[in-house]
Amino acid sequence: MIITTEQVLTALGHVEEPDLKKDLVTLNMIEDIRIDGHKVSFSVILTTPACPLKAMIENACRNAILHFISKEAEVSINMTSRVTTQSNNSLPGIKNIIAVASGKGGVGKSTVAANLALGLAKTGAKVGLIDADIYGPSVPIMFGLEGAKPRATQENGKTRIEPIEKYGIKLLSIGFFTDPDQPVPWRGPMVSTAVKQLFNDADWGELDYLVVDLPPGTGDIHITITQGFPIAGALIVTTPQNVALADARKGVGMFMMPAINVPILGVIENMSYFVPAELPDNKYYIFGQGGGQKLASQIGAPFLGQIPLVKGITESGDGGRPLILDEANPMSAAFIDLAERVAQQVSIVNARAPQSAHIQ
Amino acid sequence: MIITTEQVLTALGHVEEPDLKKDLVTLNMIEDIRIDGHKVSFSVILTTPACPLKAMIENACRNAILHFISKEAEVSINMTSRVTTQSNNSLPGIKNIIAVASGKGGVGKSTVAANLALGLAKTGAKVGLIDADIYGPSVPIMFGLEGAKPRATQENGKTRIEPIEKYGIKLLSIGFFTDPDQPVPWRGPMVSTAVKQLFNDADWGELDYLVVDLPPGTGDIHITITQGFPIAGALIVTTPQNVALADARKGVGMFMMPAINVPILGVIENMSYFVPAELPDNKYYIFGQGGGQKLASQIGAPFLGQIPLVKGITESGDGGRPLILDEANPMSAAFIDLAERVAQQVSIVNARAPQSAHIQ
Repeated sequence: MIITTEQVLTALGHVEEPDLKKDLVTLNMIEDIRIDGHKVSFSVILTTPACPLKAMIENACRNAILHFISKEAEVSINMTSRVTTQSNNSLPGIKNIIAVASGKGGVGKSTVAANLALGLAKTGAKVGLIDADIYGPSVPIMFGLEGAKPRATQENGKTRIEPIEKYGIKLLSIGFFTDPDQPVPWRGPMVSTAVKQLFNDADWGELDYLVVDLPPGTGDIHITITQGFPIAGALIVTTPQNVALADARKGVGMFMMPAINVPILGVIENMSYFVPAELPDNKYYIFGQGGGQKLASQIGAPFLGQIPLVKGITESGDGGRPLILDEANPMSAAFIDLAERVAQQVSIVNARAPQSAHIQ
Repeated sequence: MIITTEQVLTALGHVEEPDLKKDLVTLNMIEDIRIDGHKVSFSVILTTPACPLKAMIENACRNAILHFISKEAEVSINMTSRVTTQSNNSLPGIKNIIAVASGKGGVGKSTVAANLALGLAKTGAKVGLIDADIYGPSVPIMFGLEGAKPRATQENGKTRIEPIEKYGIKLLSIGFFTDPDQPVPWRGPMVSTAVKQLFNDADWGELDYLVVDLPPGTGDIHITITQGFPIAGALIVTTPQNVALADARKGVGMFMMPAINVPILGVIENMSYFVPAELPDNKYYIFGQGGGQKLASQIGAPFLGQIPLVKGITESGDGGRPLILDEANPMSAAFIDLAERVAQQVSIVNARAPQSAHIQ
């Protein structure tokens, strides 16, 4: 039996990418086909290393070869990825900017942004994080970087800021440039200038994802960022209670305004329930129930899941080490799941965009 | 034995008001002395019906009569109050405006403001509540008043707004006048006008305390309210974590600025720990530990206590009925304690103010 490249492509033409609703061959996701007797090897180029469907697609490819070509074939598949992007001339090295937003403060937006960034990096993606919450920057404390100052160098008379690297991601926080004890009396234009610098004047290098932690609500920073930079999409963080929901709806409303028009990647519900480590079967819905799902339905966006609060009686909430890094905690798994789902939504949005080359 | 009014005043002159550090007679707190043989009766006029020292002062008065005059005296004391105030010409019926503030959203500031107002009312005080959180008004949902519209009447060509009464307090929320689903794109001047109306154009009548729920952070509304109206003092709400603390310090900084100069009544730590109703001896410090005390020390303000989170596995966080009304819940007692301590601090601030007539 002689297996041909043609046969392999025909077989894999029967495998559909479940999110993009087209087959892998049409989507140009198959490369490096090699055939040696009954041995068949090829690469599947996913749209993100964080693809939650990776195992499923790999199985479907293997089964297609065995079914359509030969049960005797020995199939070896290299699952890899090139993160997709939409045209992005203003920030050429950065493939996808993900805005993390909430209508109200205190819903854990910064916690979600930090753990999302780390979750994406865990899958192998190149990730940056901008903490643009001028009125309450939290990256310095969350990453144990209080008092840190990013290096600034002069290059042809222009200042270049070097992001700080920690836990495998690149970080910049507006908090690195302000005094934590002083009120920030900056008015709109000053804030806009400062935030723009975090994007334009920093040496981000090549990034698959740049996660941006926005301030709560809808203010000058939101307008500056959404109008000044190509945002792939916004992740909306909410807590389960009704009081927070009303605010979240307002925050979402801003992204959907025609002048802004940023796709909503989905809704994540944070602090969904509390689980005492000593009573792991008990879920305490301390902030209410069902709000995230309700918000997602109301705005027609995907509901990306719930992040529980899980703590033991001796644990304290402060840190310097985001909790996705503590793999024994069930919250870690919830954040990895979130990172995969967000990456998946970015790929879907990119594939739908008219100017998109889905794999480039 | 003949007891004289003089003797009673001399005896009570030995009783010190612990907060104000002067004796009750000097403070004009004794009235209506009546003597009938060995029966002595008088009124003690406290500075607030919410005085946490009420029982202690009553005991001290009784003991003073028994000790300095006669062990045979039959003492009957009427503990009453006239809430103190500082000169307040701009809002004549309103004795004390208490601002409830936080640097960061989501710390439960609105929950504290609502339960504080109800706690003050429970002691017999006349109380109003203004929800001035334009970007996230929560009184409509917390009091089960979604969709409610306050009555507005015309009086000599001027609009008068009638506060809504619920659970014994008078309420106005910026949320009664906005659409819960629409972003609020009001700029500074419009916001200021709207907020001023809640104070100036409403029929508050006589109030001992008007509690004002400010938006988080430090913005136009804070400047409008603190410069436009005589604020007795500000209560700062924080959660225990370090991330929130930095923001709270900034919020406090604003009140302490010379141009604003609002006394800090104290710091209350909310969501201090979680207690599962099924495991009442377990305290889960889910948001960290010690932040409230730390902030109070840093700014030299009284630490007014901790509000725990106590819930059963079947309870949900949403409502329409503030939880101080659920007397079986330990959180109710914590809020009553808070109301007493805040009222106490207002009395102390009033007594210290140069223009103050402590009892008027």
